[in-house]
Order: sequence, then structure tokens, then C-alpha cells
Amino acid sequence: MARYRCIMEYDGENYSGFQIQPNAVTIQEITEKALSVLFGCDTKITASGRTDSGVSAKAQVIHFDAQTDIPDNKIPYCLQQILPDDISILTCDKVNDDFHARFDAKAKTYSYKILLTNINRPLYKKYYQYPYKINIDLLYQALDKIKGTHNFKAFMSSGSDITNFERTIYDISHLQNKDCITIRITANGFLYNMVRIIIGTSLDIARGKLDISVLDKMFETGDRSFGGSTAPAHPLTLEEVFY
Amino acid sequence: MARYRCIMEYDGENYSGFQIQPNAVTIQEITEKALSVLFGCDTKITASGRTDSGVSAKAQVIHFDAQTDIPDNKIPYCLQQILPDDISILTCDKVNDDFHARFDAKAKTYSYKILLTNINRPLYKKYYQYPYKINIDLLYQALDKIKGTHNFKAFMSSGSDITNFERTIYDISHLQNKDCITIRITANGFLYNMVRIIIGTSLDIARGKLDISVLDKMFETGDRSFGGSTAPAHPLTLEEVFY
Repeated sequence: MARYRCIMEYDGENYSGFQIQPNAVTIQEITEKALSVLFGCDTKITASGRTDSGVSAKAQVIHFDAQTDIPDNKIPYCLQQILPDDISILTCDKVNDDFHARFDAKAKTYSYKILLTNINRPLYKKYYQYPYKINIDLLYQALDKIKGTHNFKAFMSSGSDITNFERTIYDISHLQNKDCITIRITANGFLYNMVRIIIGTSLDIARGKLDISVLDKMFETGDRSFGGSTAPAHPLTLEEVFY
Repeated sequence: MARYRCIMEYDGENYSGFQIQPNAVTIQEITEKALSVLFGCDTKITASGRTDSGVSAKAQVIHFDAQTDIPDNKIPYCLQQILPDDISILTCDKVNDDFHARFDAKAKTYSYKILLTNINRPLYKKYYQYPYKINIDLLYQALDKIKGTHNFKAFMSSGSDITNFERTIYDISHLQNKDCITIRITANGFLYNMVRIIIGTSLDIARGKLDISVLDKMFETGDRSFGGSTAPAHPLTLEEVFY
């Protein structure tokens, strides 16, 4: 038996998220089935973390244990014959037995794409097509205020059994090209829907629906109801996992 | 009756090209049906030119004649309720009766996206995922040689009744970001599959399958058989039409 570490890319559009669950097609299930076919025995994977329904990944990291004669650098090409078109194993390397994709992850970067438009744009389907006029400076001010170490309980949707809500956002960067804005958030960890609530609340502030002072209230009280909307899932992409 | 000029965006993936034809769903047909519903009478459109099956457009230009009380700047929003998600009218303006989307077009810019990769990349479906090792300098040299005024007959697929094959390519630019290459070609006109043959032949040169001297042979003889492959349609996008 050896341990393998893979980087995988997937388009989450047609999946009910990463993590295996009954009565829904998930990325974990499809990937485990492909590995089980390739190695001829049940193979389970562990990811750096789950991604939600509709969320994509450019570099999700997983590990699994397997016994095989296939050289590790050939495994991605073999899996390509089995996996569907929207899931791909980009790299595969043998690693030490004690490597753990989830426990060893130190930080992650997610990106979120926004297109400011009030008319349907067929070629920008992976963007959040946002129809409201916004004050861009206010958007960036809000994002700036969210950086750092905070109690992010108010930035979490219910449905998680986590009890420690402190996270550190190392960086929030924004790249703007005309009406397209790409926001990248790097943190030591993310709560359930945290990025989507950060984006939704910041946009609500930038369009004048909420005052920027709600952010302090959210940090102080941990009360989700002070926050803004939860932005849609499809523009969210896991960009990198740091070890 | 007034004449209207529209800029439209579409994802060509699910259509048999722009131009109306029997037994196939085309962008022209769907757009004319939507306009006919909106105005309550048969409405025909004229585009700057057809785009082939699978080809997309960020700024196709069309004109049509209609009699309506709807203000021209409201027409895109009305059509949004009728058109499918992959076709959109971005702008609509009343113009002089003598404006003609095809005859008045002076030049067009197409873009073509290449991703150099030998493994499936789910999040780059609009790219030509090119699995061969290439000499990038040679790719750019080939594209450079194609610039200018030439007899482009050898860069045309059969199935067109055109007799004048001289075109002028004003510019071919390339933007590279790691393994992603975006090529933009601006010309006073394009023959059937011309961009796709330019890209396919230049890539064949860059991977060493063809010598760069084939370009001269193609210009001199007008013989398509000297050229390389026809690159796939889906990464090709009409970016701009100049009047």
C-alpha cells in the first residue's frame, strides 16, 4: 500500500458538491468509483475539504491509499479514460504515509467572479451577473475590513456542527477589468458558505442596501441576520490549497 | 418602419451556426422568432456575416426593420424574456435606413483560445486543449508571416461560392498567460474556416509537423492541401465588427 496525493480540477455545475451523500451525485463518489475501477478494489479519497453544490475547483487536493503497478505519473492519464469530462486528475504523486490532505492543509485560496451587468451575458456563465449599480470603492473598503482574524460566526450558514468560528483571512485581492471583477480570498480555513456570505454582504454594502458598519456588528455579535445575502455558488472556485 | 442596429452575444455551442437553414437550429432562426413575437409580425435580421456551427460571438452586429412603440433601449430587456439563455441582445439603437450590417462592415476581429495541455481541463472548455509540445516562437513567427494582404484561397474550406480570395489581415496579436494563449486576428474579411485553418496550420508548424515554408506555398498556389489541420470551432469567437 502506498499513499498518493493528487491535484484535481472539476466543474461543480452538475454535482451536489464534493462530499459523498445518499441520493445525489457528488464529485467524491464519481472519483472514488473511477479509482476503484482502475485499481480493482474499493478506494476511498480524502480531500482538503468539501466544496458545496455548484462550486468548482482548479486545484483541489486529495489523498488516497492504493496498491498498484501503475507509475504515479501515469495515473492521471488512466483515470481520464474513466472519469467524466467535468472531473480531471491533473497530477498524482506518491507521498509519505503520514500526508493528510485535510489535516495538513495550512490555507486555501478561493476566487469569486462578478460581472456588473443588467443584461444576460451568455459567455459569462461562470460569473455572478450582478444587475445593481454599485460603488466599487465601497466594495473594496468592505472587503478590506473583512481581512484579518475575526469571529466569523455571522458569516456562516446554519447546517454545520463547528464550534470554533475564529478564522484568519490573510489576504483579499481584487482584479478589475472593465465590468469584470475577480476577488481572491486566502484564509487558514473557511466556514460553511463563508465566501458567499462575504461576497453577498460586501455587494449589499456597495449597492447601498446595508451600511458598512454591519461588518463590525457581525464580528461582535456573531449574528448572521445582520449580514447580507449569500451570493450564488457557481462563480466560486477553489484555486489553491497550501501545505 | 425604422431600422435598428443591435449588438448581440451568443454561445454557439448548441447551434448549427448563425445562418438559417432547414432541419437545424440556428441563431438567426431563434433571434428572428423572438423579434417576431415581440413585434407581432414576421421580422428578418441581417448580420455582419455568418458564424459557423459552434462558433460564439461577443459582439455580432445585426440590423432589422420594425414598427414598434417600444423605445429602442428597452428592446434588449424585452427580448431577454423571450430568448434562450445562450443568446442575448446587448444593445439596440435606431439607425439610418441605409445602414447595412453586412455591406457596411469594414473589418472584424476574431479571437481563438488555446490551452497547451495533455490532460483534460474541465474549466477550460472554451479552449482548444492542445496536447502536443510546441515551439512557441515558431507559432508566433508563423502567425506573423500570415499578416498582410494575400491570396487566402488555400486557407478556405470547400463549400463556399466566393471567387475573390484576397483578404488583408491588419493585425494578429497574441496574449500568453502560462499555458493559455489567446490569438486575435483582425482582417477586412474572412473566408470560410479561414481563422481555423490559420490556427491549425500555425500549430502544425509550431509542433514540427509542417515546415514554415508551407505558408508561402499556400499563398502562391492557393492549394488547401499544402496546409495543416482545421482547428476546432468552439474556441473561436467573433469579438468585434468595425464600421
